[in-house]
Amino acid sequence: MEPQKAQRGIIPQKIKGFRDIDPALNQLRAHIVEKASQVYARYGFEKWDTPVLEYADALGKYMPDTATVEEGVYSFQNPEAEPVLDSRGKEMSDHEDKVIMEHHHLALRYDLTAPLARVYAERLWMKHLRGQVSTANPPLFRRFQHGPVYRYEIDLDPGRFREFWQLDFDTVGSADVAADAEVCMVLSQALEAIGMPRETFQVKVNNRKVLKGLLRGLGVLDDSRERDILRVIDKLDKVGLEAVRQELGAGRVEKSGAPIAGLGLPEALVEAVGAFFVAFEQALPREQTLARLDELLPQEPVAREGLDELRRIHELLAAAGFDDSRARLDPTLVRGMAYYTGPIFEVESLLTVPGKKGQRRKVGAICGGGRYDSLVERLLGFKVPATGASIGVDRLAELLVLSGQARPKATGPALVVVFDEAMMPEYQKLAAEIRAAGLPAEVFYGAAKNLKKQFAYADERDCPVAVMLGEDELAKGVVTVKDLVKGRQSQDIQDKDQWRREVQFEVERAGLAEKLRQMLLR
Amino acid sequence: MEPQKAQRGIIPQKIKGFRDIDPALNQLRAHIVEKASQVYARYGFEKWDTPVLEYADALGKYMPDTATVEEGVYSFQNPEAEPVLDSRGKEMSDHEDKVIMEHHHLALRYDLTAPLARVYAERLWMKHLRGQVSTANPPLFRRFQHGPVYRYEIDLDPGRFREFWQLDFDTVGSADVAADAEVCMVLSQALEAIGMPRETFQVKVNNRKVLKGLLRGLGVLDDSRERDILRVIDKLDKVGLEAVRQELGAGRVEKSGAPIAGLGLPEALVEAVGAFFVAFEQALPREQTLARLDELLPQEPVAREGLDELRRIHELLAAAGFDDSRARLDPTLVRGMAYYTGPIFEVESLLTVPGKKGQRRKVGAICGGGRYDSLVERLLGFKVPATGASIGVDRLAELLVLSGQARPKATGPALVVVFDEAMMPEYQKLAAEIRAAGLPAEVFYGAAKNLKKQFAYADERDCPVAVMLGEDELAKGVVTVKDLVKGRQSQDIQDKDQWRREVQFEVERAGLAEKLRQMLLR
Repeated sequence: MEPQKAQRGIIPQKIKGFRDIDPALNQLRAHIVEKASQVYARYGFEKWDTPVLEYADALGKYMPDTATVEEGVYSFQNPEAEPVLDSRGKEMSDHEDKVIMEHHHLALRYDLTAPLARVYAERLWMKHLRGQVSTANPPLFRRFQHGPVYRYEIDLDPGRFREFWQLDFDTVGSADVAADAEVCMVLSQALEAIGMPRETFQVKVNNRKVLKGLLRGLGVLDDSRERDILRVIDKLDKVGLEAVRQELGAGRVEKSGAPIAGLGLPEALVEAVGAFFVAFEQALPREQTLARLDELLPQEPVAREGLDELRRIHELLAAAGFDDSRARLDPTLVRGMAYYTGPIFEVESLLTVPGKKGQRRKVGAICGGGRYDSLVERLLGFKVPATGASIGVDRLAELLVLSGQARPKATGPALVVVFDEAMMPEYQKLAAEIRAAGLPAEVFYGAAKNLKKQFAYADERDCPVAVMLGEDELAKGVVTVKDLVKGRQSQDIQDKDQWRREVQFEVERAGLAEKLRQMLLR
Repeated sequence: MEPQKAQRGIIPQKIKGFRDIDPALNQLRAHIVEKASQVYARYGFEKWDTPVLEYADALGKYMPDTATVEEGVYSFQNPEAEPVLDSRGKEMSDHEDKVIMEHHHLALRYDLTAPLARVYAERLWMKHLRGQVSTANPPLFRRFQHGPVYRYEIDLDPGRFREFWQLDFDTVGSADVAADAEVCMVLSQALEAIGMPRETFQVKVNNRKVLKGLLRGLGVLDDSRERDILRVIDKLDKVGLEAVRQELGAGRVEKSGAPIAGLGLPEALVEAVGAFFVAFEQALPREQTLARLDELLPQEPVAREGLDELRRIHELLAAAGFDDSRARLDPTLVRGMAYYTGPIFEVESLLTVPGKKGQRRKVGAICGGGRYDSLVERLLGFKVPATGASIGVDRLAELLVLSGQARPKATGPALVVVFDEAMMPEYQKLAAEIRAAGLPAEVFYGAAKNLKKQFAYADERDCPVAVMLGEDELAKGVVTVKDLVKGRQSQDIQDKDQWRREVQFEVERAGLAEKLRQMLLR
């Protein structure tokens, strides 16, 4: 039945899974985006931006057979009815020659890769209609982009959101493995530029061709079977080798008692796969990893191709000055996404953060990427090689805060205290003087002008200093400065002289900006 | 009838009214946001961010009586059914005690002000339920925010978009007119920081109370009648005083022949209003404007209150060093929005841009704002005073490009030409050397490695320089540099020596970065 309208409330709340970003997190996001973007640009990537909302089918998340949108995609019916188009972009008509109209599915972008495919294909669309482009000679397109992406998750874990930021860079139109090597260089330099010391993260590379070749050598020729196996192996970090072995074989029972079905692979196959992963359990120098791969991989052409590519990536990294400490080969790396076709990348954080039970826990992957060839095929009908990676901005920001590398709170401005509304012009002049020196200053505009309320506001904003000015001080050419940082630390200074020396003291107005600069920058 | 599925195409296209942002516009947007944000922060505003999608009713754009969303709001039905809540946030039940579920209206934010109201009210919500907050002492909240906002316009004029950027700052919780004076200071400084010379724009202030008092003195006591009159006067800039006079009176006929109904006001009233606007047609120094207002305004209390506020704003601006050249009082300023209650602000660009017929045309307002008291009333039940303004980022960016103050195209990196795939490690090393000097360098990864294609790519990206390296040069410790800017300008250099001196020349590898720095920064 209808709710009674009189009772219905208008509640100030966000949609489930969305959040507001406070000044501290904004500062951190801006820092990550700025530093990484500078590195991306130094490699020649250009910044593009795309709408947050797209036609769901252009993003490839629309299943025309079911008329529903793929799970996990936040999608809506367009309020506007628009013509249905055929494959050449012409309006379709019904038997009575009337244009067929529809409320198309729209979607908040799921990632930044599908919009990239749309941009790339849209730029080629006219040439495509004239048959002037093909897989032989696709134009090169190197862009980076950052911004929010959206997931329609019904059951959200704590700390997970439906809206979060990614920061991607991609090279479309190049099959050159040098572009893959470059992905590792960019990730390594971007994270260092953000301020992560080299020893706190690890850039890892593998090649899907190596894994495919390994499985082919063991008799797995079926693509969907291969995907099943890789999906299990991808859990290695989480569940450990023994559990993976069981899931490849007969299955296992979780601690909770829940049974997990196994793939039922023959024991010999499970053992061989297991042995391969054991052989690379410990990190090795790249040269040694290549030698061991050469030894262990079958003579399958795809395996050898994958190994050659990894060797080439190693050579190019070395030539550009990226040694083992900056990128390593990890043959156990799988990456979840089905669409990778060659080299794959991941950055693992080596920092730990406080866990629920006081233990330290790992955060896992903070960046991921790989080579993918089918990006625009659905839109233009031919394959275009592409490679790239993405920094999970919000996950990285969380890591930096939890590991104590970033301030959890933003610092406020110098607060100009208002004693007397009649002196407001003087307070404005004082604030202008401070700002003219490039420092932040705010005049208190709150309703209650008593000192306690003003200092409470300064505390809430984490202001490092308050500036006070009365008629006497104005006449003397001084201002009273209160060091709020010291004031907060020195609740127990009993000595009045010490208080007046260290916490609250007079400063010549002419020298105020310089004094504040020292206090704000400490 | 159903379209035949086999024919339906998947077209790489954006939703109507949306657009991709290319590198040049991105650079300009980033510049505007960065420079203005620095000024906002220097005044103590903190950066907050909110989701692009909100519950439509929380934004105040949902009309519960009609179950439809206000025109102009891009809204959707939530795919998820959620409980209907009462005014205390409790789930509502039907007669059978079942929770009433609904697919709520969601909306892409129409502006950044309504989300600000939601944030402010949400932070107070628990206190509100406990009756601990009132209009007497609202907390102070000073935030800035930038990002896309959305309009659902069916008939879009050329150059108008459904998604565009705004950059707002607001002080919520202060009735102090000093906060209004500050809005003018911030706008003036922000635009100068963006790079607009002081003489190219004008910050204008008026007060709704002045207009209200003027009309009251003329016998207009009805609020809706007042709104009608202000709506007509707001067209002054566009249609001129005579047309406004006619629309206030009997109506007029447009050039196209279309009739425009008049408000039918008595002639004496129309004349009196007209006389007031004529009196302020020419810009005057603030002191003179105040004196003339004192002379012309009636003794209506609201008029005098408005005048006192303008006088105070003038005093505070003067004290902080903002003279007539940086902000002026303009009693003819109206601003369209109905919700302003006190001081109103606008920044008019004095730059002209090329019009359709070769004439120069004005761009109009690039910023707007004002004081508004009813921001959170709908959500919390009491008024909270607030004041602020918004920079139209995309409109300002367009102005800067059209008036020739910003580059319409982004500059590319130094391109490292690939002659020989075998030498790729050396190209990577060379690019790393250039990047180590902080300069952008890109190795060519396109499919076709012939020189012509590579230079065509360099032209497309607007690369200023190409760097070439072969076996001979490697042995000699040099690289060949081609100055692409000079090369493009000097199609007709016939003299080989001149070409080799000025356009394409050898450089010692050790001195390459320094040479490139000169070329890239010119």
